[in-house]
Amino acid sequence: MPERSARRNGIALTERQRIAWLRLIRSDNVGPATFRDLINHFGNAEAALAALPELSRRGGSTRPIRIASEADAVRELETARRLGATFIGIGEPDYPPALRQIDGAPPLLAVRGDLSATRLAHIGIVGSRNASIAGVKFASLIARELGRAGYGIISGLARGIDTAAHRASLETGTIAAMAGGLDRPYPPENIGLLEEICSGRGLAISEMPFGWEARARDFPRRNRLIAGAALGVVVIEAASRSGSLITARLAGEFGRLVFAVPGSPLDPRCHGTNGLLKDGAIVTTGPEDILQALAPIAGVANLAPRQAEEPDGDGEEKALEPPPTENERTRIIDALGPTPVEIDDIIRHTGLSASAVYLVLLELDIAGRLHRHAGGLVSLAMAD
Amino acid sequence: MPERSARRNGIALTERQRIAWLRLIRSDNVGPATFRDLINHFGNAEAALAALPELSRRGGSTRPIRIASEADAVRELETARRLGATFIGIGEPDYPPALRQIDGAPPLLAVRGDLSATRLAHIGIVGSRNASIAGVKFASLIARELGRAGYGIISGLARGIDTAAHRASLETGTIAAMAGGLDRPYPPENIGLLEEICSGRGLAISEMPFGWEARARDFPRRNRLIAGAALGVVVIEAASRSGSLITARLAGEFGRLVFAVPGSPLDPRCHGTNGLLKDGAIVTTGPEDILQALAPIAGVANLAPRQAEEPDGDGEEKALEPPPTENERTRIIDALGPTPVEIDDIIRHTGLSASAVYLVLLELDIAGRLHRHAGGLVSLAMAD
Repeated sequence: MPERSARRNGIALTERQRIAWLRLIRSDNVGPATFRDLINHFGNAEAALAALPELSRRGGSTRPIRIASEADAVRELETARRLGATFIGIGEPDYPPALRQIDGAPPLLAVRGDLSATRLAHIGIVGSRNASIAGVKFASLIARELGRAGYGIISGLARGIDTAAHRASLETGTIAAMAGGLDRPYPPENIGLLEEICSGRGLAISEMPFGWEARARDFPRRNRLIAGAALGVVVIEAASRSGSLITARLAGEFGRLVFAVPGSPLDPRCHGTNGLLKDGAIVTTGPEDILQALAPIAGVANLAPRQAEEPDGDGEEKALEPPPTENERTRIIDALGPTPVEIDDIIRHTGLSASAVYLVLLELDIAGRLHRHAGGLVSLAMAD
Repeated sequence: MPERSARRNGIALTERQRIAWLRLIRSDNVGPATFRDLINHFGNAEAALAALPELSRRGGSTRPIRIASEADAVRELETARRLGATFIGIGEPDYPPALRQIDGAPPLLAVRGDLSATRLAHIGIVGSRNASIAGVKFASLIARELGRAGYGIISGLARGIDTAAHRASLETGTIAAMAGGLDRPYPPENIGLLEEICSGRGLAISEMPFGWEARARDFPRRNRLIAGAALGVVVIEAASRSGSLITARLAGEFGRLVFAVPGSPLDPRCHGTNGLLKDGAIVTTGPEDILQALAPIAGVANLAPRQAEEPDGDGEEKALEPPPTENERTRIIDALGPTPVEIDDIIRHTGLSASAVYLVLLELDIAGRLHRHAGGLVSLAMAD
């Protein structure tokens, strides 16, 4: 029932396109939203790469932009190949379909393991690294029963709850979302588990470059992958202000179901989960609570062919309009401030064409002077 | 804020009336609803007592009805006096105001201790007898903080959670609702606690006769007192199918707030409480959750002067209509069966006067041939 349709449509990148995509997403000031706007504006990644220095200069950057070289990209692809990993572009058939729907989905995902794992509907299981014995036991039970019911499990390869969830779903399908590069697993004691995942029915995914050591600030992005790739997230033991609550909040923002396991108010490891219950998370005391809530959505979810958040594909270079004038650029910058605004409001306020506004925003973005916010809002990055 | 208005209206029973009330409620086949109907029909308890043998005979009883003698009642009052206890009639100023509102509130309540405890707004705290250390600790915390905030605590004097709740509210006000007579505390190890309650700012209450040893079937009635006398009930650790869940269900039926403390799904002592959360109980991880939910209702609740469920008071004997004819009685009995029906439907169906129908039902009731159900429905008791 939760098994997805094998028929999928999508783009297929050539090796040359994949190298250009990798260079583009690895270049400075290019995040997922900017990546999409660049491809949509210039028609393909190679044209976008060629335009970056000029965009950055026009956007007011005082230093030349760092662009990933073709040699760097080829080297990363080579590293991936040695590890048995590949890159999947957003819109390609093996890209996890639920992840494709979220705001800021990574344009390229490094993956290693059994790609057929992406065909399952996934449930995130997350929780404390210093979980209680009961918490670990419960995570195993949930992962095993959801796996038996045909769902894949996605988690973060961390100690405690994550480890238990992966272990219990090795046979049925498990995805480890990593905060660092695929060749830099964390924590070290889970290297063996990662190998088991990738050599069996599991998959490791990362949006970070090979060789990248995960730092604290990378974990919220990893949590975004979990929340984005899942139909729902189960939180088992989570302290106040823990990473698992970030995953739960993101899951809620993405319209995913949020399940929380109740626990003693006297155990700090349950403060976060009990708080989620107060905020309306589904009270979860066994796998049946999850299966019941998922039943109506498991069959139909996430099969939309193309999402608004992804580029049109990598096609012909587009014939471009002349760049906006200095006067137009000044009017747009003057209309921006530290408060996030809608792009439509900028267009209305300045009376300029949409394409001029989008292009100036792209320039500012590439120059590192624009902040992009949820819901497509933008603000000017203030000088420190 | 939760302290009630000192100004209360109500009836005041004379010693002679109190003896008659006690005889009536201690007689066979007289429960709270029958008690009310008898007083309302005959005008006072003495007239009702005098009518019981004839009612029972007309209702078809083959054995003479057992009526509590005046000597029995005087003896029970004497026992109460020796213990420092009294009886409060429903409608008298010291009767717990919230309890007065419920369906089947006891007409007479035996009380011992500080009667000013009934002036507080009460919160029930109930849970497992074999509570965990954490559960006991949490019950103490909740009881102490609610007490500090001006609420009284009501519980069942049982081991575990009840004991912790009473102990922590000895200084601020606590009510022990008992399943047996006030002179038959259960469990034995809580006799000392009961003495502390009654000699301090606490109160013990019971609707059962002095000398009555609590049996298993008496505990649900005790739970009814707790749910009825409280504005809300907090359940801390409760197994599936435990007595605390009965208290919670009754509280819900009475329109009281139900609070449940989350716990590990792997601990059987939390299955009941987690189940309550699934059914919509308020997730409770600290006293502030309770105080916040009670704030809007604490000041205004339960001050209605007279409730539909209580008798008009004990007044003049009423001039009675002639009893229904045998033919009328047969038509009413024929209209009844084992399925509960509304009294209005019987009136409509038979075309008889309301007073004739009510009187025949009272006869059947006193003869032990009528079952009364929630919502005022009645059915015929089938012969075994």
